[in-house]
Amino acid sequence: MTPHDSTLDPEDWSEVRRLGHELLDDLIDQLSTVGEGRAWTPVPPEVRARLEQPAASFPTDLPTVLDELRRDILPYATGNTHPRWFGWVHGTGTVEGALAELVAGFMNCNVGGRDHAAVHVERQVIRWLADLFGFPADSSGLLVSGTSVATIIGLAVARESAAPGEIRRGGVAAAPAPLVAYASDGAHVSVRKALELLGLGGDSLRRVPANPHALEKMIATDREAGLHPFCVVGTAGSVTTGAIDDLGALADICSRHGLWFHVDAAFGGALILSERLRPRLAGIERADSLAFDLHKWMHVPYDAGCVLVRDAELHRSTFSADRNYLSRFERGAGAGHPWFTDFGPELSRGFRALKVWVTLRTHGLDRLGAMVEKNCEQATWLAGRIKDSESFHLAAPTSLNIVCFQAEVPAGSRIDSDDLNREIVMRIQERGIAVPSSAEIDGRLCIRVAITNHRTRREDLKIFLAAIEEIRREIVEGSA
Amino acid sequence: MTPHDSTLDPEDWSEVRRLGHELLDDLIDQLSTVGEGRAWTPVPPEVRARLEQPAASFPTDLPTVLDELRRDILPYATGNTHPRWFGWVHGTGTVEGALAELVAGFMNCNVGGRDHAAVHVERQVIRWLADLFGFPADSSGLLVSGTSVATIIGLAVARESAAPGEIRRGGVAAAPAPLVAYASDGAHVSVRKALELLGLGGDSLRRVPANPHALEKMIATDREAGLHPFCVVGTAGSVTTGAIDDLGALADICSRHGLWFHVDAAFGGALILSERLRPRLAGIERADSLAFDLHKWMHVPYDAGCVLVRDAELHRSTFSADRNYLSRFERGAGAGHPWFTDFGPELSRGFRALKVWVTLRTHGLDRLGAMVEKNCEQATWLAGRIKDSESFHLAAPTSLNIVCFQAEVPAGSRIDSDDLNREIVMRIQERGIAVPSSAEIDGRLCIRVAITNHRTRREDLKIFLAAIEEIRREIVEGSA
Repeated sequence: MTPHDSTLDPEDWSEVRRLGHELLDDLIDQLSTVGEGRAWTPVPPEVRARLEQPAASFPTDLPTVLDELRRDILPYATGNTHPRWFGWVHGTGTVEGALAELVAGFMNCNVGGRDHAAVHVERQVIRWLADLFGFPADSSGLLVSGTSVATIIGLAVARESAAPGEIRRGGVAAAPAPLVAYASDGAHVSVRKALELLGLGGDSLRRVPANPHALEKMIATDREAGLHPFCVVGTAGSVTTGAIDDLGALADICSRHGLWFHVDAAFGGALILSERLRPRLAGIERADSLAFDLHKWMHVPYDAGCVLVRDAELHRSTFSADRNYLSRFERGAGAGHPWFTDFGPELSRGFRALKVWVTLRTHGLDRLGAMVEKNCEQATWLAGRIKDSESFHLAAPTSLNIVCFQAEVPAGSRIDSDDLNREIVMRIQERGIAVPSSAEIDGRLCIRVAITNHRTRREDLKIFLAAIEEIRREIVEGSA
Repeated sequence: MTPHDSTLDPEDWSEVRRLGHELLDDLIDQLSTVGEGRAWTPVPPEVRARLEQPAASFPTDLPTVLDELRRDILPYATGNTHPRWFGWVHGTGTVEGALAELVAGFMNCNVGGRDHAAVHVERQVIRWLADLFGFPADSSGLLVSGTSVATIIGLAVARESAAPGEIRRGGVAAAPAPLVAYASDGAHVSVRKALELLGLGGDSLRRVPANPHALEKMIATDREAGLHPFCVVGTAGSVTTGAIDDLGALADICSRHGLWFHVDAAFGGALILSERLRPRLAGIERADSLAFDLHKWMHVPYDAGCVLVRDAELHRSTFSADRNYLSRFERGAGAGHPWFTDFGPELSRGFRALKVWVTLRTHGLDRLGAMVEKNCEQATWLAGRIKDSESFHLAAPTSLNIVCFQAEVPAGSRIDSDDLNREIVMRIQERGIAVPSSAEIDGRLCIRVAITNHRTRREDLKIFLAAIEEIRREIVEGSA
């Protein structure tokens, strides 16, 4: 072999094969017993130090790199594959989804466009999701990294709808008047971040009480003040408590006043999978754009979200660009108009669709929906135990899968409630028993358990309850 | 097991293990022999039809799903793992990167933030890349899906620099005057798309000839006209020909006029890996923000790109948000301030860093650089053969890894040059021999070979040359 014929391929494929099989065995060993281990483990200082070493100019053999990976990375995962991870809103993933990532890694597809199977898989997955949410057959969509990007895309199309063509060329200055959008108090910070990125500014977001009349009044007042209301963002599952806006009422208002209706259903969208819970989302099928995650309550491995847009042509014309070197042919590898690049900001895109496809194919919609129902029932059960407890009390009603509660501060104790609850959260995490997170409700810190975890069993909740009981007692007694 | 204890885990892990090993073997078989097969295969109508079936509500067993995957998806990949893929600008990937995706799929980390190994791996990878490009130790960065998103982030920080704090709150209307940016004619369409998304409008992008004096004059004229020049975008590797702006001269101008200097080094950034080619990027270390891809000439599997920002604090303050439920603790799973969510629009983020880490660890910087040099030498060799050919001629000089050329139209032939060249591209793709793409230079279509392929050998270029020679003859004779 002459030097100009060297490649990055291994000299010995059989050695790579052997190492790959070993690795796969280790990963399956670990995942199949994940509940027996710790829910979270802090990264030790010596590991952190090793992960600060500079890059090497020379190659390192694969066995060595895999040993480093086993030693420094595998034991210190986020924790969300564990049955007692209840923190933030994290999905659990599945072994089937992980195998799909293996395939995607080997295929190495660029799903920006062109004509190959990955494009058809993504189109199919988007159709599945559009059908699931009752979107029309000619609606469009795109898989993205998550709801934050999905919301950026949805609101970009909404912004364009205020003056189609003009805004792409002239920017927000080309809008008929300063644009304003509306969202309820429970709206996620990503909505404000999207408006900031889009150049509308965070102040263009009006927070309204979850009250249709208040919203209509605000729209009228803003119009009289010379502003241009263009969009209402509905929330299906607020992060703190899981509250769902009255989507039907919001759709009515948008329809009446000619406003774009965007729905942020980051994790709440998964209710659509359950026949019993689906009615809570009534009106979602009337959204102009819909953003939701697949890596949360639908358990596709990170990262995967989706945006759906009712008006495919406006969606396309918001993002599509003529590209010199991307001139498209009728035949060959460059065919397949329109491309996904015509529907979003990304030109190169990975084969995210495969893990969605494999997850939905293997488990089917109903089984995924059953897990959503299970988690809501678990939250109800847990809330009941908290309610009956003498050591804890609920901080908010539990209507979905989220339980927010606080430890009782004993009468006469000098301990601060926020400090007590914060310390409980930190200790139970540090001990690797479970991972709740926290939230602020009415200005006070509470312990927050969000169950978007298909691996959680009743037994896990009992272990959790026993642990917080014990840790509270320790802290209270320690401060006495 | 009671119904409320059911999960999405397999009942029989040993069966999944067996299927996983089979799958891995098939994938390694396919990748290790990829050059023996077709470079691209159109998706047959019956496969497309199957990929249009609606979603099933019921589960499908994994063996069936994997058989579907083997039948309908694996044989119809994009094609860029093949040694004779020369289309657009696609990276080749590596088996080590693919194994990293397997691990990331199993770990299922959310790398938005918190305290776990994936966060430290991403920080390490960003430091490696910042060091590589000569960025200061206190610069910041983020892994993203590719240069398009990296450019959006870079230009968002640039926009914020025009009126820090004001623009986040008030939008582009809060800028001191209408913002304008500058880029050379070779700038990629993603720059315009970024300005559109950011609400500045596509017209805010001024195209300037690659001439520092013309740029300075334009800045002065725009200022006199009441506009606010805020940013110059330099291109390191234009898509059509691989041209590189004089980055040092652009940095001088930005420094002199107080403008933000953003560099789009989507694939050209990889030159930094080669001691010999690195000088062409002189000045890149002076960029305020730098966007480049890892999935192109650095062969990390799709998708992976990076943005680096010199002013970490401005970067953070452009994107960081207070989040109620994300209140951060000093200890436990939620520690580790700042989070990656503070530096970009995404709140949930996959473990993209692992495939970058494994690629850079196993191959090392120099070997990756050797592949870049090899591809440039291959392009020079190919350009020499085209130049010597009687059937083809170069359409542009070859200065890097891209060869643009056209087939000669025989004297007296009625065939149109664009039609001839388009047909050659389509036929060589359809036959699965090789995948060049096309470009338009001076209004005429040419065949474009971009070699960002570590798997390409001299023999592949010879096969390509023989095929285009033969196809040209067929078409010319067929039209006579």
